[in-house]
Amino acid sequence: MKSHIVVPALSQIKLTEPLFASYIEQVTKKLLPYQWEVLNDRVPGVKPSYCVSNFRIAAGLEQGPHRGVVFCDTDAYKWLETLAYCLECGRGRELLPAAEELIGLIAAAQEPDGYLQTYFTIDHPELKWKNLTEGHELYGAGHLMEAAVAFHRATGNETILQVAIRLADLICRVFGDGPERCQGYPGHQEVELGLVKLYRLTRIRRYLDLARHFLEIRGRRPNYLMQELARTGKDRIFPEFADYDEKYAQTHLPPAEQRTAEGHAVRAMYMYSAMADIALECEDEGLKNACLELWRNVTERRMYITGGIGSSGHLERFTTDYDLPNDRMYCESCASVGLMMFGQRMAALTGSAAYYDTVERALCNTVLAGVQDQGDRYFYVNPLEVWPENCLPSTSMAHVKPVRQRWFDVACCPANIGRTLASLGQYLYARDEKSLYVNQLISSSVTERIRGVGLRLEMQAELREAFRAEFLLELEGEGSVMLRVRIPAWLEGHSFVLDGQPIRPAVENGYAVLALSRPGQQHLVLTGQTKPRWVAANSRVRADQGRLALAFGPYVYCLEQTDNGDNLSQIYVRPDTSVTVAPGDPALPGNLPALRFTGLRLESGVEKLYGAPSFRLTEQQLCAIPYGLWCNREPGEMSVWLKALLPALDLLSSGD
Amino acid sequence: MKSHIVVPALSQIKLTEPLFASYIEQVTKKLLPYQWEVLNDRVPGVKPSYCVSNFRIAAGLEQGPHRGVVFCDTDAYKWLETLAYCLECGRGRELLPAAEELIGLIAAAQEPDGYLQTYFTIDHPELKWKNLTEGHELYGAGHLMEAAVAFHRATGNETILQVAIRLADLICRVFGDGPERCQGYPGHQEVELGLVKLYRLTRIRRYLDLARHFLEIRGRRPNYLMQELARTGKDRIFPEFADYDEKYAQTHLPPAEQRTAEGHAVRAMYMYSAMADIALECEDEGLKNACLELWRNVTERRMYITGGIGSSGHLERFTTDYDLPNDRMYCESCASVGLMMFGQRMAALTGSAAYYDTVERALCNTVLAGVQDQGDRYFYVNPLEVWPENCLPSTSMAHVKPVRQRWFDVACCPANIGRTLASLGQYLYARDEKSLYVNQLISSSVTERIRGVGLRLEMQAELREAFRAEFLLELEGEGSVMLRVRIPAWLEGHSFVLDGQPIRPAVENGYAVLALSRPGQQHLVLTGQTKPRWVAANSRVRADQGRLALAFGPYVYCLEQTDNGDNLSQIYVRPDTSVTVAPGDPALPGNLPALRFTGLRLESGVEKLYGAPSFRLTEQQLCAIPYGLWCNREPGEMSVWLKALLPALDLLSSGD
Repeated sequence: MKSHIVVPALSQIKLTEPLFASYIEQVTKKLLPYQWEVLNDRVPGVKPSYCVSNFRIAAGLEQGPHRGVVFCDTDAYKWLETLAYCLECGRGRELLPAAEELIGLIAAAQEPDGYLQTYFTIDHPELKWKNLTEGHELYGAGHLMEAAVAFHRATGNETILQVAIRLADLICRVFGDGPERCQGYPGHQEVELGLVKLYRLTRIRRYLDLARHFLEIRGRRPNYLMQELARTGKDRIFPEFADYDEKYAQTHLPPAEQRTAEGHAVRAMYMYSAMADIALECEDEGLKNACLELWRNVTERRMYITGGIGSSGHLERFTTDYDLPNDRMYCESCASVGLMMFGQRMAALTGSAAYYDTVERALCNTVLAGVQDQGDRYFYVNPLEVWPENCLPSTSMAHVKPVRQRWFDVACCPANIGRTLASLGQYLYARDEKSLYVNQLISSSVTERIRGVGLRLEMQAELREAFRAEFLLELEGEGSVMLRVRIPAWLEGHSFVLDGQPIRPAVENGYAVLALSRPGQQHLVLTGQTKPRWVAANSRVRADQGRLALAFGPYVYCLEQTDNGDNLSQIYVRPDTSVTVAPGDPALPGNLPALRFTGLRLESGVEKLYGAPSFRLTEQQLCAIPYGLWCNREPGEMSVWLKALLPALDLLSSGD
Repeated sequence: MKSHIVVPALSQIKLTEPLFASYIEQVTKKLLPYQWEVLNDRVPGVKPSYCVSNFRIAAGLEQGPHRGVVFCDTDAYKWLETLAYCLECGRGRELLPAAEELIGLIAAAQEPDGYLQTYFTIDHPELKWKNLTEGHELYGAGHLMEAAVAFHRATGNETILQVAIRLADLICRVFGDGPERCQGYPGHQEVELGLVKLYRLTRIRRYLDLARHFLEIRGRRPNYLMQELARTGKDRIFPEFADYDEKYAQTHLPPAEQRTAEGHAVRAMYMYSAMADIALECEDEGLKNACLELWRNVTERRMYITGGIGSSGHLERFTTDYDLPNDRMYCESCASVGLMMFGQRMAALTGSAAYYDTVERALCNTVLAGVQDQGDRYFYVNPLEVWPENCLPSTSMAHVKPVRQRWFDVACCPANIGRTLASLGQYLYARDEKSLYVNQLISSSVTERIRGVGLRLEMQAELREAFRAEFLLELEGEGSVMLRVRIPAWLEGHSFVLDGQPIRPAVENGYAVLALSRPGQQHLVLTGQTKPRWVAANSRVRADQGRLALAFGPYVYCLEQTDNGDNLSQIYVRPDTSVTVAPGDPALPGNLPALRFTGLRLESGVEKLYGAPSFRLTEQQLCAIPYGLWCNREPGEMSVWLKALLPALDLLSSGD
């Protein structure tokens, strides 16, 4: 039997690190109640979502047309999924009545044959499954399945599970091989992930088979989605997306043959995650190899230092290698959530810890940036450089918002961030038949039973220059368990001490491997160095040439106007600038430090628009904060990549 | 009687400067014949324009629907206008049969009441004048009037003039004050300019009055265009322009109250030009003051160093002060043509030479860049930094083309550049009751009769560091004439020698003023310095901080990949770098020099995507060419703003 790396039940994981704990606390305290009000169109000043209202209409409880975006049912599904994870962790029971009301509505909105998407049920029954490019029915189905599996696991609720199963069974009848079935596949991938989760819960093989089918049929000639678009012509759900092309929904090649990240970034991440799932479940080497190459292409050529992806502001998509502009791109919050999902699955598929360097990069920077510390304001787009004055509507910067928004017409991100925070434990720990994996050095605890041995682990870690993570380990029962502790890329010169004795565990696949067999408590300490560091980009990243970013541990730092004045484009920093780790602003959540250093501010000396320069540099004390926490105080400019001042180098090596 | 500054007849001006002469020669040799073939859909590989075909259909000579963009009639009008200027200068007679054929078609396509726009005549007669926002009927009318006036002046052709007059009279009946008339105004300004030209030719006052009316009614509440859009809803001619707002067509305020350049850059320039026309003709101080302020806003805060305007790639529009990104903007060729038009009119309105610094900037850089040296390839968008690999379709860079195109779906620019080159003389010389104005120091000659005195001027000028312009002046008849020679901003320390004697003419409004009264030949020499110069931008231009551009005379220079290798983002230059004026590449038209200097190339030393920098600078010999001539050789990267290396300054003034 093959070895599977899986996540312990979320109920067994408790996160105690102050920053993440505060965000997670807000999920039940603010994010879910707030989103529930938004989905019910009860928040003054927020444009109605119509989400719950559409379910009522589809259920026959109200009259009227469908309103809101075609896939806004998924906001409800992701809300339910988020709550499910909270419930599994013992929080949010006060929201159970709302959840049960919502589940009742969803069940009532489902048609007798299992069909479920309020847009088509209410207004366009004749178009069911006929606009897969834009209709998002399979996307909605996938989110329903994910929510149903999570909610069932957390509460035992059968209603929502049966809704999902009925819909899954309908999809199995409509799609698949054979001339009597639709030869289409999702315009927005997601159902594959839901089907795999439903399979893992129910062990009903046809769900897994259909997920695989959707990956295998994709990219075949003639191109199903392009043919469909040619049929629908200008009569589109999203007329502003007239630029659909084969790459947009990753249909340019069969997934197993894809080697570069193309098209819409969220669709890509969901598909690659599903490919990794299927590669694991079906031991499909072709899909696995594609996943390995796609991961490399994304993380080595098309990813921002913040773990953001999607370089084009238009169509939220990938562009080309090393094209990483800092102000106009998309870097959708959902895309970085998707990158975390993909990375987690790649780690499960390969057993390698390195994927968690990227998961952590996306989590600590872009995903964290996507939500206000209070949980009720969100970024959809996550630029690395913001000048609020040019974020103007009806321009090429219209998609970039200088402050987090209360909601969006297309509101995928708020709930996606919610479910990620609510289930954060899944990215911290994993297990297989003999090992417990510690994937993040973030204060938390976990209990697990492996090979009949009960294991409790409590980790205390704090991001400081002299890094130290303490583990309290408690074994119960006879036998041995392997403990695999990821050594993050940012940790230098790690060493372990077990009960006072230095030990040198082997490092395999990026994990320090310790065999534990002594019952009772043990005390493990991991130490190492993690100084603030200046980071540069590969010379082919044109947008970042001659620039430096500041990082500390997994966190990328940025300058904000509120700390450093406006016009951050004038700021220079010497590459050898020493950085002081200082107490963070108490106005920010958690206890991450601020980083202080001396930079320079350039004045061009040009009074008019253009003229002869009389450059003048003056020193300025600067203060950087974690990018993930930007815009939690006074709004203003923000910048990650600072200009490097390169004098000494010039003197040293000019003339080759 | 007020003094008017006007342009001599083009027939009296002859341009001899090698670069411009070569472009002008191509207008009749290649540009016009090529465009005629395109308008007739006879160029293999170029998507049909349907321009001439639509006239045939509207004239009843062919059957079928209207095809092509709604305003593609204007391509024919501008073609005719371009030919008219050539004919006036004694070139292009071989194209007269084509012109007469075209005029016959236009006349036949005109409806009995004078209406003329093939789109509405063929397919939507019920929508005439009902979609002013998008329909472009008044825009088309303006281009017809400009063409008719020019063609009539060049050839005496009455047919086209009468077509224009019939249409103008219809517009005078449809629009204007009074409840029985439509209270709308053009969605795309242009008719105002045509009406003024028609008035100046015919002296029929109602044309001038209507032009003024269109400026006075604009911006009134409720907003006519917004109301119209609300009526048409989603049923639009340009669904991709769903972001129309009040500023887009400069309807947010009455023109006389506008103070910042907003919205679509071409519409803005055409409107401001018309405002200057009306300010001059009607001595309207309100419009004049608005023009002065708008000119300042454009040229002191919203203009690229190349004279490009329109910072937003989406909707081709202005954004905000100092927002001048270098790679993703629009900088439409037509907008810079419009800036030349506006500048010329401001100079006529104020008598100030300074406006011609900007006219020259737009002409020598963006307008020249808009056309291939052979005249048959065009840029619509004129970025200052191009990396061909990221100019991808279906992304936010889709509008930026790394090479000039054979044609466009919306093909306003090719013919607009054509008519500008064909009538270039109008930007070189002007006259009023007593003076001849030399507005550009570009080799050429002019004859004019002022106060009964015949004046012939022949100018020889060459752009070299020791600048020298020689004028042969010949007066015939008794009396005195003032010669006003613009002293360009780029000329340092000018001095004059008249027939061997140094003279010190007064400088008024930027013109050196010489009184000429001696009949016969005189020889005037203007000398000065114009070294290649490094230019920086105002500190508020965030995109250009710490960057330097290289200029020589009115020409902005750029680096091209073909001379300097790829990845120009790695290039640095010291602010005190000396520049050598070297012979230009013979593969480029004209005899402008190349500029050579020693720069540095930075390697970040980062192997992966991000990592610890080990910066390394190596010297590299660089060669810059005029921006206006870029992409006339091997395609590749191009960059105007180079990174400044600031070491000495750091040592000198750090610490304030």
